[in-house]
Parts: sequence; structure tokens; C-alpha cells
Amino acid sequence: MARIDALGVVSDEPGRLTRTFGSPAMRRANALVGRWMRQAGMRTRVDPIGNLLGFYPANRPGAKTLLLGSHLDTVPNAGRFDGALGVILAIACVERLHQRKIRLPFGIAVIGFADEEGVRYQTTYLGSRALAGTLGRNDLGRKDAKGVSLREAICAFGGNPAQLRDARLAPHTLLGFLEAHIEQGPVLEQMNLSAAVVTGIAGQTRARVHFTGRAGHAGTTPMPLRRDALCAAAEFILEIESLARRQSGLMATAGEITVQPGAGNVIPGSASLSLDLRHACDSVRQAAFKTLKAKAARIARRRHIRCRFDTSQETPAVVLSLQLRTLLSRALKRHQKKLVELPSGAGHDAAIMASVTPTAMLFIRCKDGISHEPRESASLRDIRLALEVVTNFLLLLASQS
Amino acid sequence: MARIDALGVVSDEPGRLTRTFGSPAMRRANALVGRWMRQAGMRTRVDPIGNLLGFYPANRPGAKTLLLGSHLDTVPNAGRFDGALGVILAIACVERLHQRKIRLPFGIAVIGFADEEGVRYQTTYLGSRALAGTLGRNDLGRKDAKGVSLREAICAFGGNPAQLRDARLAPHTLLGFLEAHIEQGPVLEQMNLSAAVVTGIAGQTRARVHFTGRAGHAGTTPMPLRRDALCAAAEFILEIESLARRQSGLMATAGEITVQPGAGNVIPGSASLSLDLRHACDSVRQAAFKTLKAKAARIARRRHIRCRFDTSQETPAVVLSLQLRTLLSRALKRHQKKLVELPSGAGHDAAIMASVTPTAMLFIRCKDGISHEPRESASLRDIRLALEVVTNFLLLLASQS
Repeated sequence: MARIDALGVVSDEPGRLTRTFGSPAMRRANALVGRWMRQAGMRTRVDPIGNLLGFYPANRPGAKTLLLGSHLDTVPNAGRFDGALGVILAIACVERLHQRKIRLPFGIAVIGFADEEGVRYQTTYLGSRALAGTLGRNDLGRKDAKGVSLREAICAFGGNPAQLRDARLAPHTLLGFLEAHIEQGPVLEQMNLSAAVVTGIAGQTRARVHFTGRAGHAGTTPMPLRRDALCAAAEFILEIESLARRQSGLMATAGEITVQPGAGNVIPGSASLSLDLRHACDSVRQAAFKTLKAKAARIARRRHIRCRFDTSQETPAVVLSLQLRTLLSRALKRHQKKLVELPSGAGHDAAIMASVTPTAMLFIRCKDGISHEPRESASLRDIRLALEVVTNFLLLLASQS
Repeated sequence: MARIDALGVVSDEPGRLTRTFGSPAMRRANALVGRWMRQAGMRTRVDPIGNLLGFYPANRPGAKTLLLGSHLDTVPNAGRFDGALGVILAIACVERLHQRKIRLPFGIAVIGFADEEGVRYQTTYLGSRALAGTLGRNDLGRKDAKGVSLREAICAFGGNPAQLRDARLAPHTLLGFLEAHIEQGPVLEQMNLSAAVVTGIAGQTRARVHFTGRAGHAGTTPMPLRRDALCAAAEFILEIESLARRQSGLMATAGEITVQPGAGNVIPGSASLSLDLRHACDSVRQAAFKTLKAKAARIARRRHIRCRFDTSQETPAVVLSLQLRTLLSRALKRHQKKLVELPSGAGHDAAIMASVTPTAMLFIRCKDGISHEPRESASLRDIRLALEVVTNFLLLLASQS
């Protein structure tokens, strides 16, 4: 917890925690966390994209490596736990093994990913994508708000964009990846549980829905003659909510809406809203999207309004490794009577790593489900429990190897 | 129609019609329209606020004056008919009398009000309020977007703010006021009628409605645990529409909505929308407002969301003079078989003048109900009919005097 606090003040902004890819604070964070890694018996290095890695050797040569960790970057005005907890917990596990002079039949690499939130380059997972080998040359041309390209940022941080391929971890050398992370939602708190095994990362559809009616004077256009785009959008927003309430596990959100012309005394001529749709099962999400499209079309037809969908993102769901999940459940069962498996509605490095190696995630309860703000919090009790669970997981995995 | 076109290019902006209070275009408009007034046998003057007045004398001394006219200012990127038509029509009436050498037992003053739209000072009716004597000293301190006070603008236009009281017309010298104006709505077109007598100006309530729920991650907060402010607002928007559809003559509009934080992947924590409520009968409007407040409170309670109303405007309805309306209906009846009486949902100078003298309004059909944009249009046929109706009205009034 002291380390969570210490890392929580390593920031690019005074008075609040903001630590983005390739920034001076990120350099200080890597130095600080690297020191903790070495204290825990690890050799450390920073890879070409800026990921911090700490290696704890196996008890035999030629053994595979288990990856543990999470990300070290944050959103602006962040909380201290998102990402950082997973890295610090992993170090604490290795430190215990080191203190007890335990070596396992596999090596352990603790990773602090350089970018998961994607604040600086508006693209998530720079760190894990480099490890997975899916970061392309076109990504290097991306520019941040100040016009600095990713290529330049990597150089400035001491990396070598030409060697990015070297950051890639060869899948055949890997045993798996385990990420511990705060839930960032309220479910565990509601169920009064400390932790849960994650089943997978929900797939996601993001779209913009445009309704186009006819603007008009709010005082002179009788109700039956109106083609009010905001009323159509309102009807659709309630359909979104109603569908998601009926369909178990479906998350559907209209988070943003814009109205034109947008004056109090003018009937809205057009309304455009965002749709965010997530489910652990792709077919459920795709069916829901289809249903919503049909509902919107029906609303539009009845109101003599036009409706258009622009789909901006379609991310398939990621199912995490059944084998590692089973092992993690067994480890969790020793410390928590009731087991639940949760899908993750938010994206995580685990979603990228799952394409390279068997991957599992452990969710840790957070206060009020709050994340991405300073009030973000997890209890010492839950963190202690998570530490026991991950340690047990390592020992169980060792007994199977 | 040629005059409508000629006045329609007197603008402060190249390529589009924008003529605001005290502007160079307004000075040119007053000069042009003043010339037409003098051609029609009128003496002209510009009063201290900038209203243009043309006087056509009675056939006897000491007679009262009937006011005819509308406003000469426009909204930005305006149509040519809103306001201008009422002034030009009034001049054409007087011109006919003048050509036929007819003098009536009352004088006629044609008015081109200097400001009805309120674009420059964000306050409507500067012109008619000066005539009604309700423009106060605190209004003079108002500043436009460039920081020029109303006092300075009046001086720059050649007026004298200290003499504003002189603009006031003594009620005992007035016989009444008649304003002809395009409908700015689609009702006459729907009914296939050229014109209608206006019953009154609808009263208006303008309010801001705030819903405050709880923001949250769109991917991690299960539907049953959400307190989505936009969903509450959407439900309320449909209640607004549904109530107005049930209540005859009620116009209710949510024209604008803002959502916080307003990101596609964040559940809306707050939503704030505008409410515009109008009805010709104050009690109906007030009852509707009360009903909507109760509905919003019920929605908020059910959703564990807070709701607050900020009322920014409450304008009572204005009932126009029954006597002048009857006379105007008789005049209209000669030219149009079917008579309808319409309330005006929009505000007009007539609403201010009604507090000073008996007032009537004639609505003229406009194409597609469109106003406040270049496509605004009225047909030559309907304008001719309106000219006959107003001329008849004058003669009927004369026969009664």
C-alpha cells in the first residue's frame, strides 16, 4: 500500500495523478518500480517501446516464462490503483518467493506496460501490442496533441523504433499471462466479495446514430406537424436501456448526444447520439445491435424522420484461458468461500496478451465501483487476499508443471 | 413585392440578410422605407430609439391615430418577409388611400419598429417598448457583443437617450394597432387558407431541467446499478411530447440538451435540457408546467436521480382586442370564405402594443411554415389579399368612427 501511494504521486501534473506514455513521470515511475523489482530479486530492463520488465529466473534452464503485471500509465487526474496495483502485486508475489528462496519450474516476468489507456496517442495498448508484435509501422507516424510522433516519443524515451520487433515475446517461450486489476465496477462490492476470476473481455460495438427530422419554430409548429429529431432520439435511448435490462450481461449506453440547431425555442432538426454496446458473447452483442437498428428504423419511420448508423468500432470478445481460470479459481477458493466469474466490460492488456499466450485475470473489489478519478480505492484487506491468491496460483501452476 | 425584394438586400452582411438594431443597414432601411412613406403621402420621422414613423393625417383635426406596421430589423441570415411585409403592406394601404385622395376620420401612423428580434442586445421589443414607454434606464446600460452600450448605440444612430420618453405615444391619442405578419408556422398552409385573424399571443414558460444521476464506466456498470441521467431526460422528453399532443393548442419543446461528462464510454452523470411551453391560455400552460414538474419528479424518484427546474422566463398570454378582431374578421370574410382564428405561438410587437392600445394581428400564409431563413416566402396572391383585407379593415373602422 505504501508503494501504491509512492507511485501515486509520480505524476506529470502537480496536485493530481497523470502519467502518460513516454512522459518524464513515466521515466521516474519505471526507475522507481524497477528498483522495487531488483529488491525482489529480479533483473530489469526497459524494452524498445518503454515497457518495464523484471525477470525472476526458473529453477531450471530452458523453462518457459509466466508473465505477471499490468500497466503503469494512467488517465488524466487518475486514481492510484488502475494498472499500478497489478504491477505492485506481481512484484510483491515475486518478492515473497525471493525472500523464501523459492524458485519455480518456470521463470516469471513482471511487466509494467508503458501504455494501456492511450491518452497521449488516442490508441490503446501500445505496450502490450509491442509485446504481442502487433504494433505496426503506421502506428509510429501517429502524433500527439503537440505534434510529436510516436516514433519521436520512443526515441526521446531512450528506445529505438527500429528495434520495436525486439520487444515481441516469442509465444513458444511463454507459459501464460496473469493480470490482477481493480474491477472498475460495482459488482463485487454489491456481492460483498473481495475478488473474482474474469471469464473474458467483452466485445464492443461503438456507433453513432443520427436522426434527421425537421427544425421549426417552437411556438408556431403544432405538435402533430412536427418531425422532432430529439423526441425520436429519446425514444431510441429508452429502447437501448430497455433491451439491455432484458438481456443478461448486455451493457448498452448512450453516453453523448448532440442536437441541431440546439436552441430552446427551435424544434430539434437533427439529433446524433453515441451507442456503446458490450457483451462477453459476440453473437449476443451482434443480435442486440441488429435489434436496436430495427427499433431505430421503426421509430424513424413512424415519425417521418431519417435514421443512419455509423459504426466506428467492432471489437470481438476475448475468452480467457479456461485452464488458467480454473487454476485461479482453485487459488481463490482457498481464501473466499463464494466464487463468481465476471466478464470484464472494460478493455485490458489481457485482451491483447490473450492472442499470444494463455491469459487470465483477477478482479479486485474497488470502492463504489469508482475508477479513473482520485477517489478510486481498494482496501488493504482485499489486496492482501489478492496477493495470497496470486501466490497460490503460482504454486499451483508450479505443481502442475 | 418589388419593395420586399429591394428591402431584402439592405443588409449588414454581404450575400445574406442581417439587419440589426442601430446598424448601418438599418439606417439605409429607414431611408428607403421613409422615401416610400413620403411617396404615399406621409410625413416621416425617426423617433429617439430609431423607430421609423410615417403620418397620414385624418380628415379632421384632433382625431385619434390608428397605428399600422411591424418591425424592420431581422435575425441573422433572415428571410425577406418577417417584419418587412407588415411595414410595406401598411404603406401600400396608405398609398391607395392617398392615390384615391381618401382621408379617414382618424390619422394613420405607419411604424417600422427598430428592434423586435433582439439580436444585438439579447432583449426583444426595444422599438415597441420605447413606444409603449416601458423601456427603462437599466436597459440603456445593456451591452452588445462588442461592448457598445444601448445608450451609445442610440447616440450613434442619431437618437437621444435622454429623450427616450418622447418616443412614448400617449394612449389617449391612439385608436389601435394592427400588425400584419407572416404566420411563421405551417397551419394556414395545411388548411389551404391565405390569412387568419390572430386571437392572441401565447404565454410562455421557459425553463431548464436538470437531472443528476451518477456517471460510471459504460463497460463495467451493470444496467440495474446505473443511475443514467440521459435515460431519465429521455423519458421526460417523451412525457413533454405526449402531454402536448394530448392538450389542444399546447406547444412544448425540448430544443436543447447537454450531457455530462458526455463521452461515448461513460454513463451520463447529468443531463440538462431546455423546456419551452406555450399556450394562448395561461392557466392551461401553468397546469401543464405543474404536470410536467410532477412527471419529472416521478421519473427521478423511480430512477434514484435528482431533478431540478430553473424557470428563466414566464410571459403571460396576451389577448388581442375583441373589437378589432371582429372588424378584421369581417374584412377578411369578404375575401376568404373560411375563417379561422389562430393564436400566435411566437412573440410580436403586437404583444407589447396591446398593453397601450387595442391591438389586432393578421397572419399571412408562408411557404412550408418556414421563417428566420432565406427560404422564407409568401405568395403575391396572399399578399394582395392581405392588402385588400387591411384596406377594408380601415374603411370598416372609418365607417364606425
